[in-house]
Amino acid sequence: MSKDKDHSMDLLFKPRNIALFEAKEKLYYFLSGFKEHGYDQNNLYLISPTEEEVLGLKCYKSIDDIPSDSIDLFILAVRRELLIDSLNNILSKKKVKFIHFFSAGTGESDELGVKIEKELREIIKNNNNTRAIGPNCMGVYCPEGKNTYSPTFPKEPGNIGLIFHSGDLHSKMILYSSFKYNMAFSKGVSVGNCIDLQISDFLEYFNRDDDTDFVCVYFEGFSKYGETEGKRLFNVLKNMNKPVLILRGGRTTRAQTAVYTHTGSLGSTRKMWQAVYTQTRAIEVGGLLDDLIDYANMFNQFFKKYHNLPIDEQLKYYPKGKNALCILWSGGLGILDTDALTELGIELPYFEGEALERLREVYPLKIGSLSNPLDLPWIVVSDIFPKICKAAVTDQIDFIILETDSPMHWDKERFQKYYNNLIEIRDHVNSLNKYLILILPEYPHRARLKYYKRLLNEGFIVYPSIKRAAKSFLALYEYGKKIRAFYS
Amino acid sequence: MSKDKDHSMDLLFKPRNIALFEAKEKLYYFLSGFKEHGYDQNNLYLISPTEEEVLGLKCYKSIDDIPSDSIDLFILAVRRELLIDSLNNILSKKKVKFIHFFSAGTGESDELGVKIEKELREIIKNNNNTRAIGPNCMGVYCPEGKNTYSPTFPKEPGNIGLIFHSGDLHSKMILYSSFKYNMAFSKGVSVGNCIDLQISDFLEYFNRDDDTDFVCVYFEGFSKYGETEGKRLFNVLKNMNKPVLILRGGRTTRAQTAVYTHTGSLGSTRKMWQAVYTQTRAIEVGGLLDDLIDYANMFNQFFKKYHNLPIDEQLKYYPKGKNALCILWSGGLGILDTDALTELGIELPYFEGEALERLREVYPLKIGSLSNPLDLPWIVVSDIFPKICKAAVTDQIDFIILETDSPMHWDKERFQKYYNNLIEIRDHVNSLNKYLILILPEYPHRARLKYYKRLLNEGFIVYPSIKRAAKSFLALYEYGKKIRAFYS
Repeated sequence: MSKDKDHSMDLLFKPRNIALFEAKEKLYYFLSGFKEHGYDQNNLYLISPTEEEVLGLKCYKSIDDIPSDSIDLFILAVRRELLIDSLNNILSKKKVKFIHFFSAGTGESDELGVKIEKELREIIKNNNNTRAIGPNCMGVYCPEGKNTYSPTFPKEPGNIGLIFHSGDLHSKMILYSSFKYNMAFSKGVSVGNCIDLQISDFLEYFNRDDDTDFVCVYFEGFSKYGETEGKRLFNVLKNMNKPVLILRGGRTTRAQTAVYTHTGSLGSTRKMWQAVYTQTRAIEVGGLLDDLIDYANMFNQFFKKYHNLPIDEQLKYYPKGKNALCILWSGGLGILDTDALTELGIELPYFEGEALERLREVYPLKIGSLSNPLDLPWIVVSDIFPKICKAAVTDQIDFIILETDSPMHWDKERFQKYYNNLIEIRDHVNSLNKYLILILPEYPHRARLKYYKRLLNEGFIVYPSIKRAAKSFLALYEYGKKIRAFYS
Repeated sequence: MSKDKDHSMDLLFKPRNIALFEAKEKLYYFLSGFKEHGYDQNNLYLISPTEEEVLGLKCYKSIDDIPSDSIDLFILAVRRELLIDSLNNILSKKKVKFIHFFSAGTGESDELGVKIEKELREIIKNNNNTRAIGPNCMGVYCPEGKNTYSPTFPKEPGNIGLIFHSGDLHSKMILYSSFKYNMAFSKGVSVGNCIDLQISDFLEYFNRDDDTDFVCVYFEGFSKYGETEGKRLFNVLKNMNKPVLILRGGRTTRAQTAVYTHTGSLGSTRKMWQAVYTQTRAIEVGGLLDDLIDYANMFNQFFKKYHNLPIDEQLKYYPKGKNALCILWSGGLGILDTDALTELGIELPYFEGEALERLREVYPLKIGSLSNPLDLPWIVVSDIFPKICKAAVTDQIDFIILETDSPMHWDKERFQKYYNNLIEIRDHVNSLNKYLILILPEYPHRARLKYYKRLLNEGFIVYPSIKRAAKSFLALYEYGKKIRAFYS
């Protein structure tokens, strides 16, 4: 951290108490978030000069009435014109560890907004106890600390850290990835205009945080106030011992103008980022939030399995190559899959020599061909199906892609047989420390939804398309390559 | 059609009677397909030497027992060793208009299979009444003819024609696109190994077919038997007066080997296809089935509206440019959206001059910025929201992208207000003959599913990501450009 202060960020994410000014029904997401996640209401100080209670929560008339001299997290949500006076008032009366400037309409808006921001920054800079996030940000989410700005976020803690310039994307990341891949988070922060704490500060913190296995960043540009942030970010990324997945907004010149009115950030160049991706362990993510969610799912799967190993042990389990075995019911998909994988630089090794002989022993072929993709029509519910699949996972293979679908017209028994086959294949693949990825196409249908959820809850890795699966696998492969080079 | 015969393909798709040999429970999808879609059972002749009935449907002992001398569609599903004798027997006893060789294991398998195919081809060639599809194919689907090989396909007829080398992809196309976009089909055919009828034959037929507005093709390669098919396909495509969307499998050399074992087809080159896309009105589709479904949805939306116009009138309504207006709740998405659109070559015009003034009149700005993307937080349920959006649709704009989401914590009233706003915007955009596309991210959640279905049934154009929406819009734009050039 750029200022030498004696407290870490733990108290931002897991505050012992929280104050919020000004409490209003309009901020229901915060209030019902705290309620829903079970934050201790005795330590929640809502301040409102006009209301006795908001959404059933008790309010204090003014900051003087709060029964504590020190506040871990103060959420300041007032009109921008009141920000400076409010901040001065708060800091004159209480010891505050973290201020969250929720208010928008500052640096991203106009000259007056910039002026306000600069003054806020000066006040924070001259105060030795207080650090700040924002303004123009949604704030923090930490399920373990029961600290959340939305009741809809998952209550179970996970192992992923989030640092997002955009509060809305931060929220979408949490919701969509928990719905989609059962992902969960250690800590997340929407940083907004960054007048004090910068993305690099949070990266440093997450690097030391035992609860965080890897970090996802949505980056829009450098804060006007982080004069040395570019250099610092580069150095922090170099020293990270955890994966950092970076989704960058404002890659095009046209989007840069939009960035300026969004978080008031200054653009960064493609060239700079190429250097970052080459020289640090940061991983570049494609252009959509979906890409980040997809990649994160693959890293999450890795750490679910290898989280407890020391880093030099983990090294062994990153994918060593990018050879795929593709298993399907249909030749047509096999052609498109082969094209998609080949175009991404993935190899599909042919079965040859001993491997082919072993396969022929297991499966004296009648219909279909013993090739890769392995086209196995009609036999997916038979006992021979998992046997063939297992025999096809030769040493050469790094990951297995299996096309599946919700068999809408199957009876329970038939389905259960197929399901058991999938589990048998998965367990075998896991025992070899390889990766089995199921592809289940996305379409709005109850049967599909039910099947998908069942697969997720059973711990399967499932993607909606082969391209998205393969790109995510490649991200994990690239990271493994990077850190093996680093440690060798 | 390459042979001069006096009947068109109507009777393949809408046969007055259908025979199937050999009827077995294993072919339940065919049988329950006919039952479910209401094909007249008096005209359905199932032949089985051993069974009295299959799945409740009456069987005839042999072909001699069938009470009709001529058969419109004969589905031949026997072991490959029996194909030639069965065919000779059938043709010696009945006048058959169309034979569907269902059996696989022929040209795509081994030398014996190739030999069988060649003989079948000779027999068909020397018979002046009969044309054939297959072998190694699922056959035809025509809801109007109550002719289907699967009970799961939609019963409502639509306006889209399908010609697919792969039966499984053909089925997936029908199912996924009907679930996903409420799409429906006039006629579909899975052509398999093409010993007689080729893709070009079906294209010619669909070109004349009044029920078909546009055609989707999944192409893997040229049949060994269609010696002149390459040239012919090119000419047919040149003369099409309807859009043809082509998804090509086997683009990579690695996939070409897989093609050979799938339908026994011979590869085609990228160069050849570049010429096709440049010189004909065929539209190239990205590499996944999802891409084809996405593109087809956009063409479907066009023809739903302009189907009844003569072609020279339709011309006016294809997108004239590719300028987008982007409307959202969140600045973060706006940055990523701007990047995604810009990277695809789409422009987001700024509001300037009179247009900006008009917007300022409607919306005296407090928070958010009157830019494009239009970031409108907090006001989506107010009356002013549709007013701003409508004012923002200037002459310059060709299509409008609006990011939405299922508001999980809204009450009914709030939701209905928002929904009405969306409809108001949509109706305005439609009245200008422009396109409103909603983006609703895909995640497995009941509320999302319900919201999505409601939007679909209301006739909204909805895509799961901005990239997929924009690529689909561009396909329609490109087609419009092509045919305007052709007619001018």
